[in-house]
Amino acid sequence: MARPLIQLALDTLDVEQTLGLARATADYIDIFEIGTPSIKYNGASLLKLLRKEFPNKLILVDLKTMDAGAYEAAPFYADGADIVTVLGVSGSATIAGVIKAANDHGKQVQVDLINVPDKLAVAAEAAKLGAQIIGVHTGLDAQAAGQTPFEDLQAIAGLNLGLRISVAGGIKASTAKQVVEAGAGIIVVGAAIYGAASPADAAKEIFDVVEAASA
Amino acid sequence: MARPLIQLALDTLDVEQTLGLARATADYIDIFEIGTPSIKYNGASLLKLLRKEFPNKLILVDLKTMDAGAYEAAPFYADGADIVTVLGVSGSATIAGVIKAANDHGKQVQVDLINVPDKLAVAAEAAKLGAQIIGVHTGLDAQAAGQTPFEDLQAIAGLNLGLRISVAGGIKASTAKQVVEAGAGIIVVGAAIYGAASPADAAKEIFDVVEAASA
Repeated sequence: MARPLIQLALDTLDVEQTLGLARATADYIDIFEIGTPSIKYNGASLLKLLRKEFPNKLILVDLKTMDAGAYEAAPFYADGADIVTVLGVSGSATIAGVIKAANDHGKQVQVDLINVPDKLAVAAEAAKLGAQIIGVHTGLDAQAAGQTPFEDLQAIAGLNLGLRISVAGGIKASTAKQVVEAGAGIIVVGAAIYGAASPADAAKEIFDVVEAASA
Repeated sequence: MARPLIQLALDTLDVEQTLGLARATADYIDIFEIGTPSIKYNGASLLKLLRKEFPNKLILVDLKTMDAGAYEAAPFYADGADIVTVLGVSGSATIAGVIKAANDHGKQVQVDLINVPDKLAVAAEAAKLGAQIIGVHTGLDAQAAGQTPFEDLQAIAGLNLGLRISVAGGIKASTAKQVVEAGAGIIVVGAAIYGAASPADAAKEIFDVVEAASA
């Protein structure tokens, strides 16, 4: 099967650290994600910097939009984002607004299932509305309470909705194989890379595991 | 009774327009709100500009935090926010994280009930966790579908939780009296001011209505 894409969550608030991490890992990363706290703190100027330095890399802005979908998302597509996220808990009108903005720019939307009570229903609705990516996501605060995204991934994959499935929530080299085999199309890695002694080595290790598991 | 505070939602993405609107209406506004799309687009630099020009005005940053509560909120308190918002749908761990960041800086938290299924339960939980403000909020996308915050306001006010109740969702001069009488402690106005021919006149009109209703 095709190798799933590897997405690196750039979660630091520091712009130079963000760019340095991107440079160090670029060979092994398909999608640079500007994390939610970082986009709120740094604004679209960080997206422009990253886009300028990496003109051919996919960039996801983790907006986690909750309201005013088209209004909030459109300027980020205009500034170079390939994918933005919208919260599944926001409801169909907001999701549809972000999808409209994406379509206007020929770009993509990820609907994030974080904290969605009925994940299967929202995933089906996201597919119906025209989203390209569904995000199975155990947040940092939920990870701290011991939760993982693996069960949700299996349930969503079983729906065969035709959406690419993005999986996030504490994934590391030792769990990446399981995530690939369960049907992930995008594997989001954060602390396992940016928290490593050598982010480049950690990114290469994840890349090798993902490539081997999808061979 | 004490006059409820009046909060102006600064929703434009343009920094100069934001500052101009703040200058034009400052005499009648207690809290300047940096709207969610604006903080994501402009980042904390806009907060710093607004704080510098209005050192004694309350500033709310509408972060609508969904995860990583303390990590996301803390830098905004450090940069001068008096209030930040966290989504009620985020769950207790995230809400508690934002409250910790607020307490560390001697500042306040608004828990936003937008799209929360069981608003009364989350309002009670917010009070228990130590939030100061509960936000009864009909979002822009829900307003477009004809919804209003008035019924939710009455239900939340009836709980007598000791929280200040903030109400947002299409409030204008003709509905402000009803909102005051139903128990709002903060009245959020957006389009009725920034969409008016004279934002200053519109802000004064709202101010007069609120003052008269709470006399």
